[in-house]
Amino acid sequence: MSGALTFWFDFASTYSYLSAFRIGGLARAAGIRVTWQPFLLGPVFAAQGWTTSPFNIYPLKGAYMWRDMERRAEGLNLPLVRPDPFPQNSLRAARVALAALESEPEDGGPAFCRAVFAAEFGQGRDISDPATLADCLAEAGLDRALAARADDPAIKTALRGVGEEAARQKIFGAPSFTVDGELFWGDDRLEQALEWAGRG
Amino acid sequence: MSGALTFWFDFASTYSYLSAFRIGGLARAAGIRVTWQPFLLGPVFAAQGWTTSPFNIYPLKGAYMWRDMERRAEGLNLPLVRPDPFPQNSLRAARVALAALESEPEDGGPAFCRAVFAAEFGQGRDISDPATLADCLAEAGLDRALAARADDPAIKTALRGVGEEAARQKIFGAPSFTVDGELFWGDDRLEQALEWAGRG
Repeated sequence: MSGALTFWFDFASTYSYLSAFRIGGLARAAGIRVTWQPFLLGPVFAAQGWTTSPFNIYPLKGAYMWRDMERRAEGLNLPLVRPDPFPQNSLRAARVALAALESEPEDGGPAFCRAVFAAEFGQGRDISDPATLADCLAEAGLDRALAARADDPAIKTALRGVGEEAARQKIFGAPSFTVDGELFWGDDRLEQALEWAGRG
Repeated sequence: MSGALTFWFDFASTYSYLSAFRIGGLARAAGIRVTWQPFLLGPVFAAQGWTTSPFNIYPLKGAYMWRDMERRAEGLNLPLVRPDPFPQNSLRAARVALAALESEPEDGGPAFCRAVFAAEFGQGRDISDPATLADCLAEAGLDRALAARADDPAIKTALRGVGEEAARQKIFGAPSFTVDGELFWGDDRLEQALEWAGRG
């Protein structure tokens, strides 16, 4: 019997980058079906009174996060550069990802998401730039023209709906993983979330 | 070749409870010497503008933490009750712990610390109460009279010094683990910190 898990991520989130590159292999090994769900942390943070990343608001925590990311990325053989500015504006990337994830082939959407994270945290590219997103679509084997879907009213509405669902699921950070209403927060809870999903 | 690690904890900290019960066995297996270092999160939080635990300030994060703690504690076969009030005032416990950790036998200090965490998070006892601390000392095979050391000026000064060292180490939460200036934060970084300490 196989379980299912939803992977909630914001393209601006550092630890979401790690999960994006870890989840495929781990989920396959565990026989868990993963739904990739881009969302925006901005409104979540705003509801807590924050106008930017808590890693910018709390300098000690921010300095630690970058060092921790260095160590974790090195352990995973992932490149790491600090995006400038940090956090990146991830609105356009999230919208294009929604379009990519409903396109064929099925693995194109996740491949696009990984390409965006790699462009941002591996190469320091600006993910609010439509040209970056078009390159990521091409890299994922999808049509570059999908980048224009960022301006599609149906996609904008869909992303607002995702935000409402995130609020219903009581999500407060990224990455998060949900399994039948059970919430797991943080890249370091990925294994536990997959195990939970596999309980069937 | 064996390494060393410092385990920084606040008795009021939920995830420190988990680490206190995990670190002994893991460190022994890895051949790492552990220094138990109680400190106070209060001044650290105050420096970030918080007057209580961030788990109280941010309700979604707090609700998640308790559910996460339930799952983790269950996985470790540790009992879990929510202290009332939360967080507990951990000043007196930290002072007595400093006294216990410099007493003989050497394993009495860590045993006292575990007993305090167990009283607080396993039984819901008030750890600001000198009677609770005396019981914990007895349980650890130490002299109940050590509880009075909470009022010893030398201990008070020592605890302030610990706070200054925590600031130098850029500690912003608990539990934390330090290895030669390298900082690891959170119970879920314990294994990585031990691995780092073992690099020799």
